Amino acid sequence: MNGAEVLLRTLVEEGVDVCFANPGTSEMQFVAALDRVPAMRGVLALFEGVATGAADGYGRMTGSPAATLLHLGPGMANGIANLHNARRARTPLVNLVGDHATYHQVYDAPLQSDIRSLATPVSGYYSSVPRVEDMAWLAREAVAAALGPPGRVATLVVPADLTWTEVPGSVPPIGPQARAGSGEHRAVGRRKPPPGIAPARSRVEDARVEEIAGILAAASRVPGGSGGSGGAASAGEVTILIGGGALRERGLSASALVAARSGARLYCETFPARIERGGGLPEVQRLAYLAELAGAQLDGTRHLVLVDAKAPVSFFAYPGKPSSLVPDGCVLHELAGGGDDSEDALERLADALEGLGCRSAAGIGAGGIGAGGIGAGGAGVRRPTAARPEPPSGPLSASLLAAAIGAVLPEGAIVSDEGNTAGLFVAGATADGPPHDWLCLTGGAIGQGLPLATGAAVACPDRPVLCLEADGSAMYSTQALWTQAREGLNVTTVVLANRSYAVLEMELDRVGAGARGPLAASMLDIANPELNFVRLAEGMGVEACRVSDAKDLTLALERAFAEPGPHLVEAVLPRGLS
Amino acid sequence: MNGAEVLLRTLVEEGVDVCFANPGTSEMQFVAALDRVPAMRGVLALFEGVATGAADGYGRMTGSPAATLLHLGPGMANGIANLHNARRARTPLVNLVGDHATYHQVYDAPLQSDIRSLATPVSGYYSSVPRVEDMAWLAREAVAAALGPPGRVATLVVPADLTWTEVPGSVPPIGPQARAGSGEHRAVGRRKPPPGIAPARSRVEDARVEEIAGILAAASRVPGGSGGSGGAASAGEVTILIGGGALRERGLSASALVAARSGARLYCETFPARIERGGGLPEVQRLAYLAELAGAQLDGTRHLVLVDAKAPVSFFAYPGKPSSLVPDGCVLHELAGGGDDSEDALERLADALEGLGCRSAAGIGAGGIGAGGIGAGGAGVRRPTAARPEPPSGPLSASLLAAAIGAVLPEGAIVSDEGNTAGLFVAGATADGPPHDWLCLTGGAIGQGLPLATGAAVACPDRPVLCLEADGSAMYSTQALWTQAREGLNVTTVVLANRSYAVLEMELDRVGAGARGPLAASMLDIANPELNFVRLAEGMGVEACRVSDAKDLTLALERAFAEPGPHLVEAVLPRGLS
Repeated sequence: MNGAEVLLRTLVEEGVDVCFANPGTSEMQFVAALDRVPAMRGVLALFEGVATGAADGYGRMTGSPAATLLHLGPGMANGIANLHNARRARTPLVNLVGDHATYHQVYDAPLQSDIRSLATPVSGYYSSVPRVEDMAWLAREAVAAALGPPGRVATLVVPADLTWTEVPGSVPPIGPQARAGSGEHRAVGRRKPPPGIAPARSRVEDARVEEIAGILAAASRVPGGSGGSGGAASAGEVTILIGGGALRERGLSASALVAARSGARLYCETFPARIERGGGLPEVQRLAYLAELAGAQLDGTRHLVLVDAKAPVSFFAYPGKPSSLVPDGCVLHELAGGGDDSEDALERLADALEGLGCRSAAGIGAGGIGAGGIGAGGAGVRRPTAARPEPPSGPLSASLLAAAIGAVLPEGAIVSDEGNTAGLFVAGATADGPPHDWLCLTGGAIGQGLPLATGAAVACPDRPVLCLEADGSAMYSTQALWTQAREGLNVTTVVLANRSYAVLEMELDRVGAGARGPLAASMLDIANPELNFVRLAEGMGVEACRVSDAKDLTLALERAFAEPGPHLVEAVLPRGLS
Repeated sequence: MNGAEVLLRTLVEEGVDVCFANPGTSEMQFVAALDRVPAMRGVLALFEGVATGAADGYGRMTGSPAATLLHLGPGMANGIANLHNARRARTPLVNLVGDHATYHQVYDAPLQSDIRSLATPVSGYYSSVPRVEDMAWLAREAVAAALGPPGRVATLVVPADLTWTEVPGSVPPIGPQARAGSGEHRAVGRRKPPPGIAPARSRVEDARVEEIAGILAAASRVPGGSGGSGGAASAGEVTILIGGGALRERGLSASALVAARSGARLYCETFPARIERGGGLPEVQRLAYLAELAGAQLDGTRHLVLVDAKAPVSFFAYPGKPSSLVPDGCVLHELAGGGDDSEDALERLADALEGLGCRSAAGIGAGGIGAGGIGAGGAGVRRPTAARPEPPSGPLSASLLAAAIGAVLPEGAIVSDEGNTAGLFVAGATADGPPHDWLCLTGGAIGQGLPLATGAAVACPDRPVLCLEADGSAMYSTQALWTQAREGLNVTTVVLANRSYAVLEMELDRVGAGARGPLAASMLDIANPELNFVRLAEGMGVEACRVSDAKDLTLALERAFAEPGPHLVEAVLPRGLS
């Protein structure tokens, strides 16, 4: 058995059985081994950014890593942007990169490059296999590192000669001692994370839960919000910011209870990797992308409680504007970090508040959470599902597009959201809809939407995937459509075609660039020539249509969701910011 | 005047007046400044790999750098693959990367990443502007570094706050002393390369020319090639390998003279950045990509003379095959390196050979160089131009495709060659054609062809550009078609559609992977679904057609070359390796 087969078998044993691949010569043994390890599903991508973005989508939906397979430094490079997003999403992901044979690397052949330097900025774990005997245990270590917690991109570089070398003996997975040269080949029956990575999430200490409960309880008893910097904080001066693992049903429910019992404001991070929504779940407002709006949301906050979320910062810097969005004088409290069991901490916080005599008042709390006196189990905070809004009609605008999607979003949908400015209203229009998952652009590296949707559809073949894709962003990774067609994935892509980099029209003003001249304006205008996404999709085997009326959009969406396989709808919107 | 405008003005002063850009928020001041510095031409790309590949094509054709404009780490990352090719081509290129504001970087905002780690593997120069006062001199230094010699990718990172900060005083370009804090603001009126980079090419020492002349002359007097390792080398046991700057008319002519006078074998590097061909210029065979064939070309070589070329190595490693292609016992002699004036060295070598009594014999030398007794000026080695071959007809094959192109290639054409396996015969079919330039895939990072053609067309608007693009490779950077349409560039793209990663079909065997199973075969097959390049091109505003007969290909090419603006011809070839 050669190294490539050992690698595949080890990954499959560890539960990694999907590989989004764009292989080259140095990965051919891996490709050949697919027929000997058919449990590994190879999904071909025409561009590496599709492979890495798909692995991100897969990992977000399953909590378990998919593998990639990339070709040397340039292949790694093409995958970096979406690995950057995966890193920000803390997605478990095993990033396999083929390398030249160990002995070939000194020759500086044309494809030689510094893979480590390219990979480390996006990798929470990096290793290059030094000997074929180390293939199995390093693969296990990479899987363990990917899983974390928190999840991370684990990059494993595999030199070509180690894929074709026969592994001596009966292929026991070999422990790290072998690498150190101790001569003792220790079989490792299960994966073990590398030093510095915990094997499981930590339970938050009681003292921390109680301390934060005390702050929330004290504030809940201070009337009004006029205490200023001198007096005790009031409930309205405490804000809870949740993110990461707290954005699934259990964490959302517990958060809503905490907010209801304390009267604190509740927000979630601006770009969650994955948030459960709809089906009556508490709707937690996202902190706004625009620093000006986020500042208003946080205004007057004197205590900011972070639950698996980072202290809020402005996405970009702007002249004369602060980078940190934490109000002056505000004290930060971290209930739970990325390696902690945040849902458990939130539930214990809710219980502690009850123990301190804090009871929900009907109608209190951000986002309309109204149920009172319910246990910390959480299911009770679901609101009754609202009736479906009527499908709208009329010339498409950003708001009518949102209403159309709100009218037809199927139950169990997964939304890959790279709608950017034109998609701004869709989240609001779907909050009261049926249960669904929402995946955001976590790292700001555009070109995520189509690949992420692809991977989510591979992960969840029985769920409909809706990809909201801005036209400018779509053009970074259209190749994902081909993989969707090849695999027959149930992805419906709506291209939000406003024919411009509309977000930059706004940002040009925000950075203080003053009045734009015609040359600057032309650099934000992608209407010359006009992109035709119907032809682009058809060129990659995906059925597509173009609509400019909200009624036609709902009809096109209903048809796309009803039929198997991928579809694309180009939704023509007013030019630029709308 | 703000930092962005200073940057633009300085670049224009230094002769850098084209910028291939894919900007984001952190680059908006640069975009706004375009209207105040209209001498800088901004060329918008929808994907960073198009911008970097186009800058490579521009630099190869002009010898002078274009700038890029990329957005933070992820934008840099998307541009790396084609920067890798530019690095291998030693193209002068100023790679501008916007960064977060200096004070914003500690906040780890979503787009924060380690740009230096990403950039250094492809950058021969790297600097990040620390203060607005350093903008001008660092821009000058970056241009100087890019120019070399040899040319290189000079990456300059520009934090956003330094683009909107007003530059104090009368905007003198400031010298490096200011950075060291000496307080002395030294105006630098012209660019100066950073330490370690020479300001001009070096003249090769006489002693080296004479030494190599002596070896060639001695060998030319030894009859036959049977000397073996014991005796003196014969002419047939000396091989000259030329590359880089030696592949333009002057260097080719001098090389041909050297070969004719010495009887040595003459080859050029496998993937030249740019080689002049046709119009009767000496045809110098390229060293083969396949190590097996290259080994045969070099077989028996006992002295290998390198002229701006690296010692030949196998592109990839293969089981049981050597990485180095230099025959055992062969002695390497470097006449000129990348920083040397290789054409001058070759001409002096030719003269020295004449001085040593070596005269050209008619018909001697590789590639059919037959003129004897001509001066080192070189023009005299041009052969008479052959008559145009008749346009072929019949179902397209790799050889008929080559014949069709050979029949219609226009005078002065620039060929961007990413035809890979299916394009193998085109070089042979065009060698006797009118004068043209040929640009190869220098670094093996596929996705170069379309962007490179785009930049070459911007550089040389009066010359027709032919892009030979394999279908698999095309899908890495199709977005270049949109920029071609937007700029009305005279690029004719021929997509060589064999519906497979054919090179990998061959490589799968060469790495010893044995018989392929259906799963492996499917990973090399891009026919499911079939890509429709006509629709893809039309989706980006480029007129396109599909042909499957050689006659139709010539007609389509003639029409495309005759009409202004970009065209695409999808040439349907037999499936897989042909």
